[in-house]
Amino acid sequence: MILIIKQEFDQLEVDNLINELVEYSIPHNLVHAYGKTLIHSEASYKDKILALNQSSIIERLVPSGSEYIFASRAFKPEQTIIDVKGIGIGDPNYVNIIAGPCSVENENQLLLTANELRRHNIKFIRGGAHKPRTSPYSFQGLGTKGLQIIREIADDNDLRIITEVIDTTLIDEVCKYADVLQVGSRNMQNYYFLKELAKTDKPILLKRGMYSKVEEWLLAAEYILSSGNAKVILCERGIRTFDNLLRNTMDIAAIPLVKSLSHLPVIADPSHGTGMRNLVTPLAGASIAAGADGVMIEVHPNPELALSDGEQSLYLEQLDSFIQHTSAIAAAVNKKLDTSINYKYNLK
Amino acid sequence: MILIIKQEFDQLEVDNLINELVEYSIPHNLVHAYGKTLIHSEASYKDKILALNQSSIIERLVPSGSEYIFASRAFKPEQTIIDVKGIGIGDPNYVNIIAGPCSVENENQLLLTANELRRHNIKFIRGGAHKPRTSPYSFQGLGTKGLQIIREIADDNDLRIITEVIDTTLIDEVCKYADVLQVGSRNMQNYYFLKELAKTDKPILLKRGMYSKVEEWLLAAEYILSSGNAKVILCERGIRTFDNLLRNTMDIAAIPLVKSLSHLPVIADPSHGTGMRNLVTPLAGASIAAGADGVMIEVHPNPELALSDGEQSLYLEQLDSFIQHTSAIAAAVNKKLDTSINYKYNLK
Amino acid sequence: MILIIKQEFDQLEVDNLINELVEYSIPHNLVHAYGKTLIHSEASYKDKILALNQSSIIERLVPSGSEYIFASRAFKPEQTIIDVKGIGIGDPNYVNIIAGPCSVENENQLLLTANELRRHNIKFIRGGAHKPRTSPYSFQGLGTKGLQIIREIADDNDLRIITEVIDTTLIDEVCKYADVLQVGSRNMQNYYFLKELAKTDKPILLKRGMYSKVEEWLLAAEYILSSGNAKVILCERGIRTFDNLLRNTMDIAAIPLVKSLSHLPVIADPSHGTGMRNLVTPLAGASIAAGADGVMIEVHPNPELALSDGEQSLYLEQLDSFIQHTSAIAAAVNKKLDTSINYKYNLK
Amino acid sequence: MILIIKQEFDQLEVDNLINELVEYSIPHNLVHAYGKTLIHSEASYKDKILALNQSSIIERLVPSGSEYIFASRAFKPEQTIIDVKGIGIGDPNYVNIIAGPCSVENENQLLLTANELRRHNIKFIRGGAHKPRTSPYSFQGLGTKGLQIIREIADDNDLRIITEVIDTTLIDEVCKYADVLQVGSRNMQNYYFLKELAKTDKPILLKRGMYSKVEEWLLAAEYILSSGNAKVILCERGIRTFDNLLRNTMDIAAIPLVKSLSHLPVIADPSHGTGMRNLVTPLAGASIAAGADGVMIEVHPNPELALSDGEQSLYLEQLDSFIQHTSAIAAAVNKKLDTSINYKYNLK
Repeated sequence: MILIIKQEFDQLEVDNLINELVEYSIPHNLVHAYGKTLIHSEASYKDKILALNQSSIIERLVPSGSEYIFASRAFKPEQTIIDVKGIGIGDPNYVNIIAGPCSVENENQLLLTANELRRHNIKFIRGGAHKPRTSPYSFQGLGTKGLQIIREIADDNDLRIITEVIDTTLIDEVCKYADVLQVGSRNMQNYYFLKELAKTDKPILLKRGMYSKVEEWLLAAEYILSSGNAKVILCERGIRTFDNLLRNTMDIAAIPLVKSLSHLPVIADPSHGTGMRNLVTPLAGASIAAGADGVMIEVHPNPELALSDGEQSLYLEQLDSFIQHTSAIAAAVNKKLDTSINYKYNLK
Repeated sequence: MILIIKQEFDQLEVDNLINELVEYSIPHNLVHAYGKTLIHSEASYKDKILALNQSSIIERLVPSGSEYIFASRAFKPEQTIIDVKGIGIGDPNYVNIIAGPCSVENENQLLLTANELRRHNIKFIRGGAHKPRTSPYSFQGLGTKGLQIIREIADDNDLRIITEVIDTTLIDEVCKYADVLQVGSRNMQNYYFLKELAKTDKPILLKRGMYSKVEEWLLAAEYILSSGNAKVILCERGIRTFDNLLRNTMDIAAIPLVKSLSHLPVIADPSHGTGMRNLVTPLAGASIAAGADGVMIEVHPNPELALSDGEQSLYLEQLDSFIQHTSAIAAAVNKKLDTSINYKYNLK
Repeated sequence: MILIIKQEFDQLEVDNLINELVEYSIPHNLVHAYGKTLIHSEASYKDKILALNQSSIIERLVPSGSEYIFASRAFKPEQTIIDVKGIGIGDPNYVNIIAGPCSVENENQLLLTANELRRHNIKFIRGGAHKPRTSPYSFQGLGTKGLQIIREIADDNDLRIITEVIDTTLIDEVCKYADVLQVGSRNMQNYYFLKELAKTDKPILLKRGMYSKVEEWLLAAEYILSSGNAKVILCERGIRTFDNLLRNTMDIAAIPLVKSLSHLPVIADPSHGTGMRNLVTPLAGASIAAGADGVMIEVHPNPELALSDGEQSLYLEQLDSFIQHTSAIAAAVNKKLDTSINYKYNLK
Repeated sequence: MILIIKQEFDQLEVDNLINELVEYSIPHNLVHAYGKTLIHSEASYKDKILALNQSSIIERLVPSGSEYIFASRAFKPEQTIIDVKGIGIGDPNYVNIIAGPCSVENENQLLLTANELRRHNIKFIRGGAHKPRTSPYSFQGLGTKGLQIIREIADDNDLRIITEVIDTTLIDEVCKYADVLQVGSRNMQNYYFLKELAKTDKPILLKRGMYSKVEEWLLAAEYILSSGNAKVILCERGIRTFDNLLRNTMDIAAIPLVKSLSHLPVIADPSHGTGMRNLVTPLAGASIAAGADGVMIEVHPNPELALSDGEQSLYLEQLDSFIQHTSAIAAAVNKKLDTSINYKYNLK
């Protein structure tokens, strides 16, 4: 059972309530986010809690397990905007563009990519150093060396880094290099990991599980929020269905649906969502038309030789038409691409 | 095995080939569409066929069962545009708008709807008279009376009618009233029915089965095309997946994918695709951004009292914002809505 | 809204109720099955109906569209056994065995098959004359000739025939030859067709749609039952899922689930359920262990040359081990195969 | 690219090959399992490798990423049997029975359960101390205290413990208490975690991901095998499909399919597979009929009050009929339950 404390509470009143809980041996747990306070207790103590002197500061009781709270728009009506070194993710006036290779392969690959991103004034680069691959005999990523390469090149090109953490034991290391931590589709329901991840102060891009219902996705976000990290970015990347002509089925309807249910930013990943290069730009446009706050895509200087995801990576030359198409759709919904913003955080 | 005859053939040469097939007792079957000719025979006769004098007019041999031919863009590279009383469906310059109730319920309902469509210069009305309902105890449609109502009101309001045929024995009757025959999701793989339907000269809107792979959908179109009716319009209406928060999962990626594989027009049905009123307009926009040739939606003067599909029907008042959003997205991809066309086919 | 009439009603009371409905212009519709009576009316007339003099014979009011009635075990607790020329389908003491080719191809194929079935004392032969094929260029079945062949050979070998009807316009013809009419997976939700089919007095084997939820399957059965044909046999044949290594995913749990929800016989089709020959016998055993009333499988004298479904057809020689395995599992659940019954209906 | 070394190799020859790889700067990686040796290198070095003096000891070259090797029956034809304190898992003569609560809740719950398991001579107890729950506000398990409780009670009742590890950082702790480490459905594709887990010498029960194809499941096993732990037990626990009447759709066909593809033991979990108490025993029987090496089920002294999974837990009293049904089916496939074995490993 969850007690939501009235917003206009007095800290003293909360302290008094806690004291009473302690006094009457009522098990409880405090969580804070967005300047509000929840107390989590057990349903069997309901009557005892309501009989406390300070119970008047309780706004609402919610049965445990039934719903997400911090993640809901009912709880926080205003849109959440997450600042990443001066650029907001989730800003209703802009569409964020994130681009980069699936895996960091070597310096030259990343240098060519970063130059092209900079030419388009793109603010965010993606690129994995630890890769979750279906076969143990596939390329598993460069590890620390990959993180070093992407950090150095990002710093030289005014780029913010989004990169994946694949295990609890790697959180500290990845935090040294990344600006945004990505939780991959296969980890969306590793709740222990999510709780550990929430202890960092980095924004967390939470990819939807390829097999996850929308409610499960929001409850995964709730794990992070209720563990104290309020900077969650949701990412729709396609779900697994019976149709196997494409790699995944992109659930475009989930974008406006989640935006109505939650205040968190929602971005789209049409590269994984389709698995096919020619569909990336049309689906990026469709996502923006449906209300996505941003789009993350894979590009590669030489997709034919990519160590992973080559078929779904745009050629660098295709960034022109990609930017042209997405900015036209963004304009149709009264937004601009964030590539139109002139803000440099760290240009050497 | 299928023999595709070279395009620049002489009719006499084809006749001679047929004569040879008859002479050598080779089983065969001729099909025509788009001014081309296929001969369907059995693989075991391959060598005999290639030894015929006229075999030189055979362009290509295709193994049976392996692929769609008439439906493919390889076979017919130019986009197909289907004329419905002066308005083209599939015209690359326009996005078709089709609107109307799920079921024809009574004259008043349809009159209110048609007036609003006319106010927006919408060219196509949808509405079912025979309804496939999951329960035998749900409203099954008005039948003939429903068809009479929609025809009369359509004629009074310059509207073209799209309505469903649910059984072979009803084809003749529905043809008396409809301009476009709809094949519902549950009938997409009733191949006998498709072949019978192809004997009419009406355009056929073929909804994707809620469980159908893209290739199966194109093969269903192939059934109609190879049976002699070249006027097939494909309609993406959502597929069934594990996520049951929405009625269906709309497969937006299928739209550009199918348009790359086939020359047939592809429209989107975000009403069935989502099952939720608030998602209809964003998904209509997403479909157009992804390349859809048209959008079909459900509207109702009083969705709360609708005999079917109320939750996914727009209020008539919402048509304004629907038209505004879809025309903005259409403009972003260099198209106009067909509501901008001034063409009256039959105004009394 | 549905009114269920108390079981111990008097016909006169029902007649009086009808007269009252007519008198007060209340729309209504009578349906009968299993010696009981339902009246179907509209919810808006609820108060009027309850105010009628004869309303006391109404046992229960059920909201339309929400549930199956005739098909439910709540309505009819005792198991339904359907007699097919002296052999019961659904008899709790026996497991029915149905075998035969996917398609009737020619006399010799069927003769070899029937001889082998007879050797095992199998009572039912399956075999299609009209085949629903994904491609228009695949073998579509022998049609009437196929029906004639299977009837003649069945009569010579004491076999009951199960064969598919694929269209309303073919019902009369197939009825001339078949003992049990099969509704294929792709037709399970063609409700108009189901209602027409129910007008025959033949038992109907209703395959589960490859995309149908259990409730939809039972509602499809309800269409047939409420249209006057009480002899429905349900057949689980696998559903379509994300895993495409096999043709379908056989939903074995649906067998005991449906048997708890409904009194209708449930048989299993592991040939379509798996699409792989080596899995047919293990899955037949699993189905029986889970409570299936029967098993239907595909066998062929020469699977490599079969015109359809060769990879999932047992060799005739494999019938020995199939019978051995299934009879051992049947014994473990206190049943016998119906091949142990000595009953000849029609031996020339 | 993977080089498989001929089985009848000489260790000196392998050493010589390695020396050559080092000498020519060919990147390589050795993996061992089941007394065989693989060398993993890069495809671009193929010609160089084949030109080495020692290349004659290479039996086969396999393209990386395309297949599982150690997990395949082609590689190791004989069935793998994994000894757990004197009881074999995977023994073709026996069916293993594993039972216990979803979560360890308190001593009394476990004591009542263990007494009942002992009465039936059951050898394995399951029970989670760290629970992956969809909501952060649901019971998350007792943690270390739960592990202590289950270990103590297991030791008192001659039970072997199967319990889940949910994070890399918890491996060491769980290893102190568990006999078999369970990888949950949500972790099946956390490859980093699998590799870390493989460093222990405990048997690993690898649940199939609810969204995982059979091939992905075997590749997840391959991660563990190729990282040096050969004691993998596969567990089918249902997949997620469109039908949401049950919690999951149990893929019974996957059992004989995987057993034909792999030598690893395969057990079934009908509790999670169905989510419904009444279906657990029929599906356990079906799994054994289909060839499962064992069955794992949830039981609880008081399912109505269970902190998790109550609806799918058998009452302790139902163990009688469960054992009766499963042993009858086991006998039909010429096996016995392992409860018939008299072997005590550790009775105080």
